[in-house]
Amino acid sequence: MTLIFEIEARDTHSRARIGRITTAHGVIETPVFMPVGTRGSIKSLTPDEVRDHGAQIILGNTYHLYLQPGHELIARMGGLHRFMGWEGPILTDSGGFQVFSLVYGGIADEIKGRRPTQQVQPGMVRVTDDAVIFKSYIDGSTHVFTPERSIEIQKGIGADIILCFDELPPFHAGYDYTARSLERTHEWERRCLIFHQETRAGGLPFAPPNPDQALFGIVHGGVFPDLRRASAEYLRELSFDGLCIGGSLGGDKEQMRAVVDMTVPHLPDHLPRHLLGIGDVDDLIECVARGIDMFDCVSPTRLGRHGTALVRDMSTLPAQRRWKLNVTNASLRDDQEPLDSWCDCYTCQRYSRAYIHHLFRAQELLGIRLVSLHNVAFLLKLMREIRQSIREGRFAQLRAEWLGD
Amino acid sequence: MTLIFEIEARDTHSRARIGRITTAHGVIETPVFMPVGTRGSIKSLTPDEVRDHGAQIILGNTYHLYLQPGHELIARMGGLHRFMGWEGPILTDSGGFQVFSLVYGGIADEIKGRRPTQQVQPGMVRVTDDAVIFKSYIDGSTHVFTPERSIEIQKGIGADIILCFDELPPFHAGYDYTARSLERTHEWERRCLIFHQETRAGGLPFAPPNPDQALFGIVHGGVFPDLRRASAEYLRELSFDGLCIGGSLGGDKEQMRAVVDMTVPHLPDHLPRHLLGIGDVDDLIECVARGIDMFDCVSPTRLGRHGTALVRDMSTLPAQRRWKLNVTNASLRDDQEPLDSWCDCYTCQRYSRAYIHHLFRAQELLGIRLVSLHNVAFLLKLMREIRQSIREGRFAQLRAEWLGD
Ligand SMILES: [Zn+2]
Ligand SMILES: [Zn+2]
Repeated sequence: MTLIFEIEARDTHSRARIGRITTAHGVIETPVFMPVGTRGSIKSLTPDEVRDHGAQIILGNTYHLYLQPGHELIARMGGLHRFMGWEGPILTDSGGFQVFSLVYGGIADEIKGRRPTQQVQPGMVRVTDDAVIFKSYIDGSTHVFTPERSIEIQKGIGADIILCFDELPPFHAGYDYTARSLERTHEWERRCLIFHQETRAGGLPFAPPNPDQALFGIVHGGVFPDLRRASAEYLRELSFDGLCIGGSLGGDKEQMRAVVDMTVPHLPDHLPRHLLGIGDVDDLIECVARGIDMFDCVSPTRLGRHGTALVRDMSTLPAQRRWKLNVTNASLRDDQEPLDSWCDCYTCQRYSRAYIHHLFRAQELLGIRLVSLHNVAFLLKLMREIRQSIREGRFAQLRAEWLGD
Repeated sequence: MTLIFEIEARDTHSRARIGRITTAHGVIETPVFMPVGTRGSIKSLTPDEVRDHGAQIILGNTYHLYLQPGHELIARMGGLHRFMGWEGPILTDSGGFQVFSLVYGGIADEIKGRRPTQQVQPGMVRVTDDAVIFKSYIDGSTHVFTPERSIEIQKGIGADIILCFDELPPFHAGYDYTARSLERTHEWERRCLIFHQETRAGGLPFAPPNPDQALFGIVHGGVFPDLRRASAEYLRELSFDGLCIGGSLGGDKEQMRAVVDMTVPHLPDHLPRHLLGIGDVDDLIECVARGIDMFDCVSPTRLGRHGTALVRDMSTLPAQRRWKLNVTNASLRDDQEPLDSWCDCYTCQRYSRAYIHHLFRAQELLGIRLVSLHNVAFLLKLMREIRQSIREGRFAQLRAEWLGD
């Protein structure tokens, strides 16, 4: 068994749908948000806490895990599940995204369509039609990723869902570059699939800890409708277990949603759809409405480290809602309320805004923990409520409550 | 009720004894080790975790809590217990130790008798016979601690056990200085007791969150037997609820133990005895043998932050035992064993040395959490075993097993 996806119900007013993905490490109810554990740890949290707060699947980053501790060591330790103590489903990306973000700037900048803020050292990364050659951020050593190598590494890590190796086109790539890049990425994805199938019976330099891996393709094509359509149509002919929407998603939320709108109608209905790297409250709701089944984002833990808590934002003008509370605000000094009264996470059950404010003022690590846990739990609860609302035929109502009419 | 101390059993081969301290927030079995939560948080850990691993009482630092968030805010929030979510007993120090460590160097250096490594800004602290005037490390504002002020602040924080304000003599003070300082400290302690008693019925600028506070005196006198004896005899005439051994404890472990040996025989048998700031494995065992009931130390969380795990050290030569494992050692890369096979903490039940090694290599906060929790749990388990061994008449055997014959 690799992966089974069953659609259980559909919203009648949007493309939203609920389903179940069955993997070797358990069942995932969709639409699902997966917290990101870049280096084999959801930053500052234990796997048990994340599971107890409703996480069904987590994401690990192949690029980081390959450099430290290395996929062969992880394979020797019995795979990432056992190594990090998370028994549920895991998804790994291919490493392509992180390698290319070395060229074009920070990951967050790239995915949000912002211009890169940091300059990359010359010679850090070189791309050919066959491979990406890059230097380790840890010790400067040189490494080569090919499609086959990315799959091999992901087989060592042993996630339940692995992704094809793809090229991330540079920021604001024009139509011609994006079209050429798409061709290269398609070839790489085909090679990933072939290698994935060929190595099912063995032939790797280590014993793969998880023989039941599913492989997802990634739809590219930037902000161009005909390229997105061509990409979806190319990939649907290959036997992937699911499809992601990746590559450039445009310069703002509207463009990102437009990319989803121009892509989803061309995706096969029977495969799960993962929108890569998106996790804002409004984006989750809007993209579920557009037919997305799976999300991942570092934002809950990244915001947590910087003292920003996700909250139900009931600002009168929906366009002004940001769903964020800066816990270092002086107004929280005396505030005995929990971070969010709707949330039922451990943090909100046990600690006041005043205490969390103090922890951040005093630079105590516990503050990062408590807000990170809350943020992860907040998004997981939002996804549970989204699923429930679809099941009960009131998703449009939930969408209006959170985002305004 | 303030505090009741009952001695339950005594070791026949040493001064070791087991007892029960009853406070308004629960019972403490002695000898006890208390983890330190300097700023209202046992660094990186939740109060629930610390309690679930056997902590009976924790220590908060008055100096830090006074500067941030302030004792009046803590009082408004219902006291430190409620503010930080720890329902068990709490002890606060007087703030004196931290203020004086600004003058004479780091706290750890001072208590270990090492020469201070950092220079103090001129004008940071000034001492008179009546008060200590110091500048905040947060914003440079000027503050004054007097004996009365220290007690007032501690009444706002609301710990179950509070300490007298004392002078910490400079490093390697000679006999004359130590004798003069002792006189000043005795006068300060007397004033603390009077103010403590006078304000029982009210008269503070806030409602004290915990009316059942016990006050401990602190025996000084450096490394000089006649001064230690004089201090113990002076303090035993005052109606303190317990006594600490504080001030300079000498330049090494032998001198520290000599100070305990020269002091304990002059302490009243019926009061609990707290040795301030000591928490090494060998020191805990050796000082229990010398009649100490209470210990506190930042070491388990400080070591945890720096990647050092406490372990049962069975080196053949007892003199070489250090009970420490550097988790970044390359030899741990593949090590599937827990940090310590004797320990039964959450970390040791769930995670391998290899994973914790990886977390520190990858600079993941979870590594700090897991090792800090282990270290705290390790010392708490050691204390449980010590108590059990005294109860069962085999403390000498435990001492020999851990420290050699
Ligand atoms: Zn919460
Ligand atoms: Zn342990």
